[in-house]
Parts: sequence; structure tokens; C-alpha cells
Amino acid sequence: MAPSSPTAILLVACPDQRGIVAALAGFIAAHNGNIIALDQYVDAAESAFFARMEWELAGFGVPLDQFAAYFQPLAGPRRIAWRLHRSDQRLRMAVLVSKQVHCLYDILARGESGEWPADLALVVSNHPDHRGIVERHGLPFHHVPVPAGDKAQAEARQIALLKEAGVDFVVLARYMQILGPAFVQAFPMRILNIHHSFLPAFAGARPYQAAHDRGVKIVGATAHYVTEKLDEGPIIEQDVIRVSHRQGVDDLVRLGRDLEKIVLSRAIYWHVHHRILVYKNRTVVFS
Amino acid sequence: MAPSSPTAILLVACPDQRGIVAALAGFIAAHNGNIIALDQYVDAAESAFFARMEWELAGFGVPLDQFAAYFQPLAGPRRIAWRLHRSDQRLRMAVLVSKQVHCLYDILARGESGEWPADLALVVSNHPDHRGIVERHGLPFHHVPVPAGDKAQAEARQIALLKEAGVDFVVLARYMQILGPAFVQAFPMRILNIHHSFLPAFAGARPYQAAHDRGVKIVGATAHYVTEKLDEGPIIEQDVIRVSHRQGVDDLVRLGRDLEKIVLSRAIYWHVHHRILVYKNRTVVFS
Amino acid sequence: MAPSSPTAILLVACPDQRGIVAALAGFIAAHNGNIIALDQYVDAAESAFFARMEWELAGFGVPLDQFAAYFQPLAGPRRIAWRLHRSDQRLRMAVLVSKQVHCLYDILARGESGEWPADLALVVSNHPDHRGIVERHGLPFHHVPVPAGDKAQAEARQIALLKEAGVDFVVLARYMQILGPAFVQAFPMRILNIHHSFLPAFAGARPYQAAHDRGVKIVGATAHYVTEKLDEGPIIEQDVIRVSHRQGVDDLVRLGRDLEKIVLSRAIYWHVHHRILVYKNRTVVFS
Amino acid sequence: MAPSSPTAILLVACPDQRGIVAALAGFIAAHNGNIIALDQYVDAAESAFFARMEWELAGFGVPLDQFAAYFQPLAGPRRIAWRLHRSDQRLRMAVLVSKQVHCLYDILARGESGEWPADLALVVSNHPDHRGIVERHGLPFHHVPVPAGDKAQAEARQIALLKEAGVDFVVLARYMQILGPAFVQAFPMRILNIHHSFLPAFAGARPYQAAHDRGVKIVGATAHYVTEKLDEGPIIEQDVIRVSHRQGVDDLVRLGRDLEKIVLSRAIYWHVHHRILVYKNRTVVFS
Repeated sequence: MAPSSPTAILLVACPDQRGIVAALAGFIAAHNGNIIALDQYVDAAESAFFARMEWELAGFGVPLDQFAAYFQPLAGPRRIAWRLHRSDQRLRMAVLVSKQVHCLYDILARGESGEWPADLALVVSNHPDHRGIVERHGLPFHHVPVPAGDKAQAEARQIALLKEAGVDFVVLARYMQILGPAFVQAFPMRILNIHHSFLPAFAGARPYQAAHDRGVKIVGATAHYVTEKLDEGPIIEQDVIRVSHRQGVDDLVRLGRDLEKIVLSRAIYWHVHHRILVYKNRTVVFS
Repeated sequence: MAPSSPTAILLVACPDQRGIVAALAGFIAAHNGNIIALDQYVDAAESAFFARMEWELAGFGVPLDQFAAYFQPLAGPRRIAWRLHRSDQRLRMAVLVSKQVHCLYDILARGESGEWPADLALVVSNHPDHRGIVERHGLPFHHVPVPAGDKAQAEARQIALLKEAGVDFVVLARYMQILGPAFVQAFPMRILNIHHSFLPAFAGARPYQAAHDRGVKIVGATAHYVTEKLDEGPIIEQDVIRVSHRQGVDDLVRLGRDLEKIVLSRAIYWHVHHRILVYKNRTVVFS
Repeated sequence: MAPSSPTAILLVACPDQRGIVAALAGFIAAHNGNIIALDQYVDAAESAFFARMEWELAGFGVPLDQFAAYFQPLAGPRRIAWRLHRSDQRLRMAVLVSKQVHCLYDILARGESGEWPADLALVVSNHPDHRGIVERHGLPFHHVPVPAGDKAQAEARQIALLKEAGVDFVVLARYMQILGPAFVQAFPMRILNIHHSFLPAFAGARPYQAAHDRGVKIVGATAHYVTEKLDEGPIIEQDVIRVSHRQGVDDLVRLGRDLEKIVLSRAIYWHVHHRILVYKNRTVVFS
Repeated sequence: MAPSSPTAILLVACPDQRGIVAALAGFIAAHNGNIIALDQYVDAAESAFFARMEWELAGFGVPLDQFAAYFQPLAGPRRIAWRLHRSDQRLRMAVLVSKQVHCLYDILARGESGEWPADLALVVSNHPDHRGIVERHGLPFHHVPVPAGDKAQAEARQIALLKEAGVDFVVLARYMQILGPAFVQAFPMRILNIHHSFLPAFAGARPYQAAHDRGVKIVGATAHYVTEKLDEGPIIEQDVIRVSHRQGVDDLVRLGRDLEKIVLSRAIYWHVHHRILVYKNRTVVFS
């Protein structure tokens, strides 16, 4: 449940060690923070500890801009990697889209409904088709063609647009171009993609055709962070739907659209609520 | 993942309060306990705090038989209700069954495979049919008829059998008799039942017939603790399967059998691992 | 898969009888119709036969406006109830909506994408809030307040608007008013509602609150035809999502929104493709 | 629903053609057969027609041992490939198993419960471990070791055992040896395997480990017919279960066991009811 007053959110990862929860919870308590959520996970096989702590800012004794200085004596010796967020700091989101429009519609609707603590800053597309749909929401739309031979320049322009708009993270809403390394590195673990299959099955192009040819009885969709290896980034969320021989490729495409938009929206939800930690190409999602 | 060495498991429930996690984790750490799992949950609407902590017994500085004395100074002022378990203390389970045999088969197989840290102490049935199935597993089978007019005496005998066998909890594996208050009170929140519908839909008798008559597109099964109100105890687990007009009542019965045995077995798994807390007729399952 | 050329769609229901499939298929074949889909179902318990046949209009020897005359000699003696549709005749749809907007957004997007062989004729609401959302799609929006004491007059106005717009069927997209008998009778088995629970569990108001209070581990949504008995009409489609103690009522509401819009859209899909037969308050859905 | 009196079951596959349903249904009707189930499917992309017809033997005018002679005039010109079965002819099943025992337990229980119109003829294992479990059901158990260097001879012995027992089909119930071509060819499309992943993801060995390493959020199981290409035969059934970062490999193995046994049992159910057609390495399952 969303807290009614602003909170701080701390994500930590470190080697598993005796007393780590007591140390973390003790630190917040010692500074008069009221913890409203604490999720922790120990990966026994990796001897790794992960936690997400959320506490009310009201009454908390550490000014957040000096948090590092206060927290370092605890974090340093324990080799804690951490990130701090505020719930009242709305993220800025960019959407990249191609011709398929169902995820875009869904994101625009959720954005307008205030479903996420995030603002849709702009939409960028390699096709001009969806300008009207975006602009009638009062949002900027940029058509950036991606010519086959000159992707680098197009990406440079995309990155410039996103940086200019102060974008925190990027959503590929069925964007059918492969991102180059420069783009990926500009937003590390901050680009969410929806792939229209149950990865790692049917990576690459035309997954519904491939799924149909293989005769699977279930099709899926996968939301993941984009890394430099296509369709191999850490998986955030997946879901599936049962199909049968009766569904042709067109039916899989149609049924898959609903999966894709729902799965993508769940990943966005967790991302904007700072519920995802990445390690070893896997995600810990404190859902 | 099951720990390889013995652990202590502490379940706590108390009013939500500042510093509660720090206090609990600090207590274990102060006595040199290595926490391997900590799950906590705050019900904001009820201002209630729940946690399950599991730590290795090796090296823990408090003798478990004196745990209460050590823990009370912390628990008392905070109004903590708690239960302590040891992972190396196998629970003793009784199964009550009638004519439907699929859940019994499944429990016998899991028991024999060592899937649970629990021992099947005996099987009791109001019918003699399944004696052979039980006895070939080397387990005692008791036929206790439940005559329509004399349930109280039958239950007295059942309770005596269970007590004699040192039973910790009872599984109703499609036992088609309604338990009287005396039986329920003898094993409070320690009787697990499987109901063959998605409760609260189709409580009572013949749920598959009722589901078919209503024309539902999904049928379910529900595992719950038994209370004195039939089919109204706290729900532990539910699952469902999609059906269509093509499935007649017989098909629902057949498909439902698989649901029932799987759902029941998940509830047993969580029960024997001390992962369930009950409050306000709901369960917190730290799965 | 959608056929590329116009088809005729025949839905039939009759007592089960020897040779019925041969008679039906033989009739189409005798008139040179190329059957592209034939679904049939026998309800053995009711001795009832149902079928949906779809064949290409190109080359079919019976003018559709004289179909009854040709078909009657076959249908009459066999007591066949039947409906005939053309795939190239787009249905006209009305949407009724209150404050909740997610189903409306989804329907507008699907309509604009051409997902259905149907045209959204108008949107009617008892609140003025969503006028802008509707009108920017170039669609008419009518605000018809429904005062507590004077629902009959409001419904008369709604019915008049729908009739004037030539509406074939009505979608209640989280419309929070109970329809009176006059409205229901104006569109028999042509009003689709989405109820935000897994019916028959949690019929009536505030189902997510009720689901939370009961502590269910799965929540659902149900699309059904509206009859005069609230929440008791024939179920077209249901789907569910797993939840846990961690989800408060607000979370159930949020997660349920996605269920509701998907379940409703599936029901609309089958309705506009003439894939649904109703009998004995149940549906046969030839999906 | 299972018919109460014996039926004939006809499976047909042929090029799609005008009037094919009328011809088939007409043939049965002309010989006074009462059709109780007719499922048909047209693969428009392949222009292929498939059907399953089931009719009561009582009153049917064609002696089944002369069916071919009667049916050929219809089937020949239409290039119909067909198989005829009788519902009262129980199939004989063999089970091959290695160390994992959960599928074996499940099959033994279903067999003993009479869930299938099939008889378990024998169990063969490359390990001696499960002899007791099998023999207490009164069934023959054969231990056939499969030495690394001499699989051919072991398979020859297996085939001989199966042939001798008059086996109709073979179930690999977590049998961990790869079958050689001779074995596969001895039972074409009559060997069912359960693979512990959502194929084609994680084919090959140790799929749960691979699924964990990839960080998937859903794991699955796949029942398929065995062909000479490992894990690439036509898929009969798949199902999945949601997991999270919290599940280690051991947990996936545990949760997967339930998936495996249920998915395998569904495939067996359809196989013994003659509901599966194979074409182009895909299945049509008239479920």
C-alpha cells in the first residue's frame, strides 16, 4: 500500500554476514526513523544479502543530503553497495515506440490516470504514425528516423533528446530497433524492454511465428532490463497465457498484446517504486 | 532452501511499533545467532506487525529451553505473542480420509519420499476401503465408523487415537464428515482441510455440481484451517484451473482432484515449516 | 484467424439427435458453401446440441435474405433455434461508464486500433468526468445523471440515446449503477458487464474489500451478460491473479484493474464474433 | 464426460476440402451411428483438415473389423489418413523410470484408481531402487541397467520386455537416459516424455539450474512425444508455475515435481482417449 507521507527508500546489497539486519534496522531506529517496509533476501548459494527498507521521512534524524556521511561508517566495513531514493521524487520516463501501439496506449492511459509516481516526459519513435495519439495527451512526440546505415547518428539524437528532457529511465514499448552500446551505457539498468516471448525461448525476431512453429501450448511475454546482449538482460517479470492448436500466428499476436502490456506495466511499477535490485544478470524484485 | 544444520524458528505478532525489527534482529545478533531468513510484514490497516525469523542453532548463545526467560524482557513490554520451533523436531501428522483417495495417495507418496520434515503417524477413516493402501506403506490405519446419530462418540475415539499417537496436526484429505467443536478445539489451528472449490464460492456440499450449474469458467480448490464454522476458517492456499462449457461435472471432479492434492500439499509444506501465522481469520504465509 | 473474405455465421441450438451434424454440414455443402469453421458441443446431461458454423459467402448458393426459407425445412422438424450473422456487418457498441476509467481507456484504444469488427457508437456516463477522454477520440459522449430518486427517467433517456445511435450491444465498463428491468429487456443478452470479483464469490458492492477481509489468495474478475438479477447473469469469461497477505485492499484494486479490462475485452471479442450461445444461464463460448 | 457404452473413435487428417465434414458425418449417420463427439480443426495456413469423431457402437451398421472396406470409398479420393479405436479396448502402458520417483508414484496411484482406460503392464528402470514401490501394487518391475558403453544391448532387452508384455505405449516418467533410434522407431509417436522445463527453453540436462541461472520468473514442464531429436518432439501439454528470486534451485526442483506429474498425467489422459493427432511436429489435441 502506498504510504501517505514521504518516505526514504534504501536498497542495499552486500556479502551476507552475521548481524546485518540488526545493523541496518538499528541504524534507522537510532535516527528515529519509522520503518514501514523491510524486505530482505539472502542468496545462500552466493552468500549475498539484499534488502529494501522504507521509512517515513517525518521525524527521521538524518538529512537525506548527508545520508552518505552518516551511513558510511556502517556501510564501509560491511562492503554495502546502496542506493537511496525518496518516494516524493517523481521519476521522468521516456517511451520509445515503433509501429505496434498497444503498449503505448496502455502507458499513456496509466500515466494520465496517475497510476505511477512518474511523469511521462516524451515519446520518441522511428515512425511518425503515433504523433496524434501522443500529442492529444499533451505530451511531446519526436520522430527520429533510424536509417539502416546510420543508426549511430539517430541514437545520438535520441540520447540528446532524452538527456535534455531530464529522463531517468526509458521504456521500450515494442520498439523494434536494437539499441547500440552507447545508448545502453547512457542508461545502465534503466532501460526496460518488453519481449514478446517467454525468454529465453524464442529470443530474436518473430517470436510468435517461432512459437507457433514449435507448437507450444503456452505463450509468454518478458520484461527485462536492456543490456548490450540482445534479449539477454536481467528478467524483471514474465507472464503467460495458454493457447492451443486452434490459435494461428495472428491469434498469438493478438493474445500476446494483452500479455505484453500487462507484463511491461508491472515492471514499470516495480522500477518506479525502487523495488528491483540486479545482480549476476538476475533481479531481486521486492514486490 | 532447506538449511543443512538445525535452526530455530521464531514467529512473532505484535502491535506495529518503532524499532521492532531492530529489537528482534538485535536480540538474535546479541546472542550470536546467524539469521538465515527474516520475513516481516506490517499490516498498515491494522497497525499489526508479523515476523518469522530463522537462525542457526550452532553457536546461538541461548539454550532453547530457556528462550522464554531470555526473550521475555524484550517481548513483554512490546506485547509480542510468539512461538518457537526447532527445524530438527519432526512434526507428527494424522490423516483423516473418506472414500476419495487421491489426496491420501499423494500424501503417502510425499511422506515416503521424505518431502516434509514430518512423520505420518496414522490414518483414520470412516470407511474401511483404504486399509490396504495405507498398510502397505507400513503405517497404521484405523477404521472409525461415524454413525449418523452418534458422531460425538466416534470423535471421542478419533481424538483418543490421535492423542495416543502424539499427533501435532491433522490433515483432512477429503474427509467428508463435519468435525464437531470438541475435535476442532483439540487441535486449534492445527487441522488443515482441503475444500474442493474456490472459497468462499461454493461452500458446502457438491461444489463441482454447483460450479457447473453456475457456469463458471474457472474452478478452484482451497486449503484452510478448520474452525467451528464450516468452510469459513482462515485460508492458507488456493489455486484454480480454467474450464469451459465442454467440461461436465465429471470432468470438473477429475480436474479438481489434481488441484486438490497440490493445494493441500502446499498448505502442509508451509505448516510443517512453521511459515503460517493466523490473525483475524486470515493467514500470513511467509512462503 | 480472421477470414479475409466475408463469411456467414450460423449459431444453432436444438435437442441432440442422430445425424444433426450431417444434416447441418450437408445443408451448407449442398448449397456450395465452404465451411471454414465448425464447432459443436453436445451437453449430454441436457441432451442438447449446440453448434457454430462459419462459411465463405463467396459461391454460397443461398441469398442470405432468403436463408430462413431455405433453412426452415431442415430446422423446423429438428426444433432448431438459430441466428445468422454476417462477418462484414460491423456491430455498433455503446459503452456505459462511471468514475473508474481503466476499462474505458482500454476499449477506446482497442476500438481505435481496429481490434474488433465493431464501431464504438457512443459513450454514456452518469458523471461528466471523462468527456475529454472520449471526445478526443472523435466519439460522442453523453452525460446522463442518474439521480437517486429518479432512475427510471435517466434510463429512458439512456435507452433513447442508444436506440437513436442504432446500438447493437452495450458494454458496462465499470458502470456502477444497477440497471432496471426496462433497460435489461431493451437489450436482452446484449449487455456485457464486468464484475470485479470471481463470481459467485463477492457479488454485490466492494468485492475487493470483501476478498481482503476473507483472506483469499487469489482474486478474479468476471464478464457476464446482464440479466434482471444483479451479478447472476450467464458468465462469459473469468480470470484470476494470485495475491498474498501483503496486498492491501488498494493493491487488490490496482491489480484487479488489469484483470477487469482484459477479461472484459475477451468477452467483447467473442460477442462481436458471434461465438457465444446462452442456455440455462450458462454460456457456450466457441473460443 | 466418459460415455457409458462402448464407442468407436475415428481420427482423420486430410487436405482441407469442401464438404469434408458433411461427408464424414454423413457416413456415420448413413450407417446409423450416433455421434456423441465431433471435434474438427482446419489449419488454414496449411490447408489441412483434422477431426476426431466418436459414436456409439450400439446400433452402428458397420462391423469394425470391416470398417476399412466401408470407409475406403470415402477416404481414398479425399486422401484421408485415419486411425480407428474402440473405447472398450484398454491400452497397455509401460513406464520407464530412473531415480526420481514422483511421477511413478502418481502414475501408480492413477492406475490403481482406474483413472485411465489403460493397464499398467510393467515398470522398467535402470536402477533397482523402486522395485518395492512397484511390486506392492502387484505390478512387474524389471531392473535393466544401462551401462555407459552398452546402451544398445540394454535397449534391445527393454524393447523385448515391452513387446513381450504387449505394450501399446511407453511413458518416460523422469527416465534420465536418452533413447536410441531403435527404441524410438519401435514405438513411433507412442512414447511420452516429461521434460522438466518449458520447452524449447532449457532443453537438455539440468533445466532447473539453467532456469535459476537465467533468473526466470516462471518455470514449466513439458510433455511431448519422443522423436529421435532429443527434447524436440511434438509438444502435447505444458504448464507453468510462478517463482521468484526467493526460490533456489532446490525449490525449483521441488515445485517442479508437482508440475511434472500433473502435466505428464494430462498427456497420458489425452493419449489413452485418442485425442491427439500429430502433424508437422505439432499436436492437435482435442481436449
